[in-house]
Amino acid sequence: MNLTADTSALAPVAERLEADLADLSGYADPDAPGWSREVFSEPYRAARDWVRDRMRDAGLETTVDAAGNVIGRLAGSHGGPPLVTGSHTDTVHGGGRFDGIVGVLGAIEAARRIRETGTRLAHDLLVVDFLGEEANRFGISCMGSRSLSGILTPAHLARTDTTGHTLGQAMRDFGADPERALGLGWDARSMHAFVELHVEQGPLLEQRGVPVGVVTAIAGIERLLATFRGRADHAGTMPMAERHDALVAAAEAVLTIERVGCGAPVHGVTTTGRIESSPGVYNIVPEEARIWAETRSVDHTWLSGVRRTLADELAAQAARRGVETAVEWLNDQDPVLASRSVQDVIAAGADSLGIPWAPVPSGAGHDAAHMAGLGPMGMIFVPSHGGRSHCPEEWTGLGHIVTGTHLLAATLTHLDALPDVAA
Amino acid sequence: MNLTADTSALAPVAERLEADLADLSGYADPDAPGWSREVFSEPYRAARDWVRDRMRDAGLETTVDAAGNVIGRLAGSHGGPPLVTGSHTDTVHGGGRFDGIVGVLGAIEAARRIRETGTRLAHDLLVVDFLGEEANRFGISCMGSRSLSGILTPAHLARTDTTGHTLGQAMRDFGADPERALGLGWDARSMHAFVELHVEQGPLLEQRGVPVGVVTAIAGIERLLATFRGRADHAGTMPMAERHDALVAAAEAVLTIERVGCGAPVHGVTTTGRIESSPGVYNIVPEEARIWAETRSVDHTWLSGVRRTLADELAAQAARRGVETAVEWLNDQDPVLASRSVQDVIAAGADSLGIPWAPVPSGAGHDAAHMAGLGPMGMIFVPSHGGRSHCPEEWTGLGHIVTGTHLLAATLTHLDALPDVAA
Repeated sequence: MNLTADTSALAPVAERLEADLADLSGYADPDAPGWSREVFSEPYRAARDWVRDRMRDAGLETTVDAAGNVIGRLAGSHGGPPLVTGSHTDTVHGGGRFDGIVGVLGAIEAARRIRETGTRLAHDLLVVDFLGEEANRFGISCMGSRSLSGILTPAHLARTDTTGHTLGQAMRDFGADPERALGLGWDARSMHAFVELHVEQGPLLEQRGVPVGVVTAIAGIERLLATFRGRADHAGTMPMAERHDALVAAAEAVLTIERVGCGAPVHGVTTTGRIESSPGVYNIVPEEARIWAETRSVDHTWLSGVRRTLADELAAQAARRGVETAVEWLNDQDPVLASRSVQDVIAAGADSLGIPWAPVPSGAGHDAAHMAGLGPMGMIFVPSHGGRSHCPEEWTGLGHIVTGTHLLAATLTHLDALPDVAA
Repeated sequence: MNLTADTSALAPVAERLEADLADLSGYADPDAPGWSREVFSEPYRAARDWVRDRMRDAGLETTVDAAGNVIGRLAGSHGGPPLVTGSHTDTVHGGGRFDGIVGVLGAIEAARRIRETGTRLAHDLLVVDFLGEEANRFGISCMGSRSLSGILTPAHLARTDTTGHTLGQAMRDFGADPERALGLGWDARSMHAFVELHVEQGPLLEQRGVPVGVVTAIAGIERLLATFRGRADHAGTMPMAERHDALVAAAEAVLTIERVGCGAPVHGVTTTGRIESSPGVYNIVPEEARIWAETRSVDHTWLSGVRRTLADELAAQAARRGVETAVEWLNDQDPVLASRSVQDVIAAGADSLGIPWAPVPSGAGHDAAHMAGLGPMGMIFVPSHGGRSHCPEEWTGLGHIVTGTHLLAATLTHLDALPDVAA
């Protein structure tokens, strides 16, 4: 790919980016571990006012839409479908200072540099701080990007937390307009392109020693609840060979699920996150056990094959112990491919700036997966130290953030120069 | 062994025994599943008044000791150390109509038949309904027999349930005298012999098609709490090979514990009764997991070997996953051998009545294990249908109960005729 623009001047001001990261990390729940800033919390509300002020200072015209997305607009010379970038500033409980945040502050800095350097984009540039990307107490993630992509539903708004409050009420209390958010969906092909800068949250980039990843796809997620029903027996008197032990069957399933994940081609992972057994006492052979597991892959075919394989294997293994199984699958998200053309622009932009890069899959979900329904989508990853994320130890060095932000600004500029971005 | 007494006339009155079983099963908690009559409950209090009345009707002189044991005495012709028999009338939550109960009602019927047939015993005969044999909400079992054997401690009385009440207070509220119960221990060799009739709670007798088991030993119990500490990681982004998954390590341990039990000689069993993992969500690789397990065997050497083997294997397997382990063992009870001489009397008594019998181990704990500290001990088992116990489906046919009760009466008579019973 031949790029015409020289984007070397778009390099961000590292001190400013560092100060923004430090300032934003100050908006954290003092009663929670790490740098917690959960959606709808007071620190989140205050942080987003701060974000909106930073957008204004950068010369962006700001709005907050009905779904609670904070949007800053830098007008282009001839309008048309906008270029969109952004990420989120909410965190998980006990989260860190980089997940999502780097993509919002990097986008603001990129817009600032585009404006400061007198670079005039043809398209409008929208910088978005999407509402609540992390899974929250209502069991829904990516609320803001779901709304923009038109897949937020009344059923979502009716979901309740443990106190019986609905998501709709929580949004209203936060100042959003949930009913209007349902009809907020943008038209298909209403974006010129969408690019999200994000920390990798995995170890691949650090291991390969490259500062930037060009995301090839965002993994799909299939979730599994398996229930094992055996027979409660006296743990002292029932011989081993005559038991129908639900917990042993569940333990075997945990190992089978792991084995299937270890055999995945490309990027595929399997995780049993939770297990329970009942009645749960020393001296009774467990009558029932449950496991909650998930499989993730960018490969749709592998994912659907795993659904079939696991359902069969778990049932067959348990049957050998005289234990019955019930397996429920829930499709959480299909894999989403990054646009080939956006990947190419990111890679060529990195080459032109002399930034080493590698293609990487995303095992985590992102707002970009939903925005992909509205136009060409791409993501830029920067390394996560030790691959750690969703924990206080989450860490990405300033140098990597500066490099990623520079590449984001360059990518936006290159995409702007294309009359049309192919999917 | 040559027995002198003809005990055929001691056959119980089946209809009377059947009526007693039906009447006692009427004392059950209407709000709990099965035939629940937990220690200290109102149905338990009422049932034991009924038991005491049945003892009186049988011509026994009754007392309730400081530990809450209901004791009926049939005076012998020359006194001396008494012959003792009995069991318990409390049940587990959701229990059945036979565990313990058969041994109390069988003992009362045996005493009745001894008296009705004009059989005069040389030794006093004590029929005991021991207080609270089943594990209760204070985490202690065999309270009555522990008191008699002198191993009830102030630490036991200070134990609290989930509401903060102590065992001592619960005993006092029930009308017992916990402080005096601490000093109630009988002298060693203060019994001529102890014999307990009980349902097997396992499937061996039914499978072998014999109506009576002569118990060889009561299994010892070792309990294990293993904690696995790995690392919490994002379940979508951390590759399988780089995880330190505490739950997978725990699942492997569950299978190892099962395998060790399957390889046990004589009667040995291993059970993981409970498992937990945290943080316990779909999308985080589990950081910590715990399992609660137990091993039981009548073979002391095997039990101590298993302690060593499991501690080593669990740690080595987890270490291969980069998961740390902490294993705590708690000795719950050492194996207790039944007296050879009492076993011989039971077996010879069965032969003289034409009752087929088989030697069987006891995987469950019993009051007899504690009473063994006070003199020669033996147990008679009758079959449990399908080996089921501690559940509403628990079932032993009346014919087997009649046979076992007859053998109990015969055994007491034969033991009475011995000037001294060897250990």
